[in-house]
Amino acid sequence: MPCTFEDLTPLAWSRPGGPRRGRITTTRGVIETPEFLPVGTRATVKAMTPAQLAEIGVQGLLANTYHLYLRPGAEAVRKMGGLHTMMGWHRPIMTDSGGFQAFSLGAAKEQGVGKLGGVFPGKNKEAARPKSHKSGDTLAKVDDDGVTFRSYIDGSTHRFTPESSIALQRLLGADLILAFDECTSPLAGKEYTEMSLERTHRWAVRCLEAPRDPHQSLYGILQGGAYPDLRQRAVEFMTKLPWDALAIGGSLGETKEEFHSVLDWTIPHLPPHLPRHLLGIGEMEDLFEGVARGIDTFDCVIPTRFARTANVMVRPHFPGRSRRGTLNLRNAKYKQDFGPIDPDCSCYTCRNFHRSYLNYLFASKEILAGTLCSIHNVTALLDLTRQMREAIEQGTFQELKREYFRHGPT
Amino acid sequence: MPCTFEDLTPLAWSRPGGPRRGRITTTRGVIETPEFLPVGTRATVKAMTPAQLAEIGVQGLLANTYHLYLRPGAEAVRKMGGLHTMMGWHRPIMTDSGGFQAFSLGAAKEQGVGKLGGVFPGKNKEAARPKSHKSGDTLAKVDDDGVTFRSYIDGSTHRFTPESSIALQRLLGADLILAFDECTSPLAGKEYTEMSLERTHRWAVRCLEAPRDPHQSLYGILQGGAYPDLRQRAVEFMTKLPWDALAIGGSLGETKEEFHSVLDWTIPHLPPHLPRHLLGIGEMEDLFEGVARGIDTFDCVIPTRFARTANVMVRPHFPGRSRRGTLNLRNAKYKQDFGPIDPDCSCYTCRNFHRSYLNYLFASKEILAGTLCSIHNVTALLDLTRQMREAIEQGTFQELKREYFRHGPT
Repeated sequence: MPCTFEDLTPLAWSRPGGPRRGRITTTRGVIETPEFLPVGTRATVKAMTPAQLAEIGVQGLLANTYHLYLRPGAEAVRKMGGLHTMMGWHRPIMTDSGGFQAFSLGAAKEQGVGKLGGVFPGKNKEAARPKSHKSGDTLAKVDDDGVTFRSYIDGSTHRFTPESSIALQRLLGADLILAFDECTSPLAGKEYTEMSLERTHRWAVRCLEAPRDPHQSLYGILQGGAYPDLRQRAVEFMTKLPWDALAIGGSLGETKEEFHSVLDWTIPHLPPHLPRHLLGIGEMEDLFEGVARGIDTFDCVIPTRFARTANVMVRPHFPGRSRRGTLNLRNAKYKQDFGPIDPDCSCYTCRNFHRSYLNYLFASKEILAGTLCSIHNVTALLDLTRQMREAIEQGTFQELKREYFRHGPT
Repeated sequence: MPCTFEDLTPLAWSRPGGPRRGRITTTRGVIETPEFLPVGTRATVKAMTPAQLAEIGVQGLLANTYHLYLRPGAEAVRKMGGLHTMMGWHRPIMTDSGGFQAFSLGAAKEQGVGKLGGVFPGKNKEAARPKSHKSGDTLAKVDDDGVTFRSYIDGSTHRFTPESSIALQRLLGADLILAFDECTSPLAGKEYTEMSLERTHRWAVRCLEAPRDPHQSLYGILQGGAYPDLRQRAVEFMTKLPWDALAIGGSLGETKEEFHSVLDWTIPHLPPHLPRHLLGIGEMEDLFEGVARGIDTFDCVIPTRFARTANVMVRPHFPGRSRRGTLNLRNAKYKQDFGPIDPDCSCYTCRNFHRSYLNYLFASKEILAGTLCSIHNVTALLDLTRQMREAIEQGTFQELKREYFRHGPT
């Protein structure tokens, strides 16, 4: 049985294109939505145990097919009993298609992810060292059938197609899996984005036809960059296909306004009975904007990546908050700061440790620093989505959002 | 109130110089003995949260005065509410005197810890870079009043005396504190060891006279190297002083036989009403030998240090066990090994993760690898001491030891 979605929004507050309180039911348990899914790229949410994730109340995770395909290998994961058994996490897991990393990892930044038709460097020694590749090199080449790319680990050559991506995700055994698509760069022009969109749509049909396990739910991905007509075309094409759920991917524009527009062009036209995932978004303000428009789930590496560099997430009106939405605990002023990260936070870290101690742990390069700050950051996002769920149930989401931004987003 | 010790060994099994089942009561809780105390050098047991330590059943920790003195500073620890509040650990903590690291860290290995009367390098730039110091340099100089040493962090010059060590430990606020002593090297000759022992004894008196908090229990340290007459002199001198507890320190010889002899020369002559700590010992076989002779507590970095290098502790008869008492999970054979580290271990790691996954986490340099293996190693030692306590209660300690070594120590 693939997943089901129930809309639990009280009728009195329910309106199309507005926030919704939902429940995604999978064979491995439910995800009450809206919800944020932390990312465990290599089948581990970095610096956290599954027990810590469960204690915080994490309902689901996202793991990356690309990384797991390269190491330990999808077949090795299957031999270990599948992703859930392997990583000791028995609640829902989402895997991506592997396409995004195949395109982006190692592709020279100057070219942008979208300009992937460039020279494939062949087997010369220089190109075989991904860490030292020259500007202008690219490690991925996309064609109508799939993508050929080089491993970020050893430079070896590999290939993903829609069929192989679904087959890999079947071996991994996640509950929620993603269609293989091309994620275009914000720098890609309209012509390339349109050509890529058509290809993504042809791949979508192939993904749906590929064999998958009955319990796996397949998400179609809506692309189209920051172009309203392409986003509309994506909606028209993809909503006619028998997906179990839908995700919004690709370039969400270069400004917050474009990001909001992409959501506005897309979400109101999605069928209400399918879960809606927004790929790669995890800043507090963005979660609010996504939920306000009817997104159910999000995933992003930032809470845990920020944590390991001493950046702890706090609300917009919080004293000392940076533009990234964080305090940087490496700052010398925290050396003598004997309060918790956030006195209103109920996480293990805020209940037990001073900023001064965390500052000291980072200065001492102690592993515990990243763990404690990851616990805080994931908790901060999950506290926020919990508040959102309660507010939607009570018809007070707009008040929560207003209160949250009462000093304006920084 | 300093700590108290109760001997809970059933009368039927109690004999001088034999194993004892005890209870050390401090103002921050009890330690049922025999017990192993994990080391949190910099006020963190590396890669583990205090919650994880508590869940395993850790009863007490040891933290290092030298490291905390240099960073964040003892006064900074006091401002953070003392060690317990700072590190979120509210059960007993032991601190060492700082002397051992002051002598040993940075002292050239060729010289040995004991030969500390060497040239103090002064303030030339070369010597000020501890990481690149030349062979033959030493960063510590001991005199009759104390030790002058260089920081391993920045090469700056510092000094410890018996009085300053006790004052530092007072600021840190541990429950169990150690007298300032000189720990001689196994390479030190008898003449130096004897001279050093006399100095340690003069320092002992000064430590006892220095002001300390009433709840802090002061351990006297028995030195004397591997020389029976010096060990005897240490016992005679130290047991006449009003210590709250005693610890055996210094060189324990170069072979297991010498180690056992040092214990045999010392423990039978110690007053039965004082807790007995054995410094820096943490291998399973050594815990058995220590407990068999009446040691109550141990501390050592090895379970957590081993863990971070993929060495997991297993019992002597365990297939594949190395001379160090471990399996190295980086070994390629574990890549396809779908069992737990130890099927008889009940730790979180063994209940939830395969060796293959741990092998993969180490290959991927994931932080979780060290955390999961630390959980296992600390659990392994605590399971062993729990079995020892039960066996002493039931009069079956010798059977447990025999069973444990049934294929002989490797």
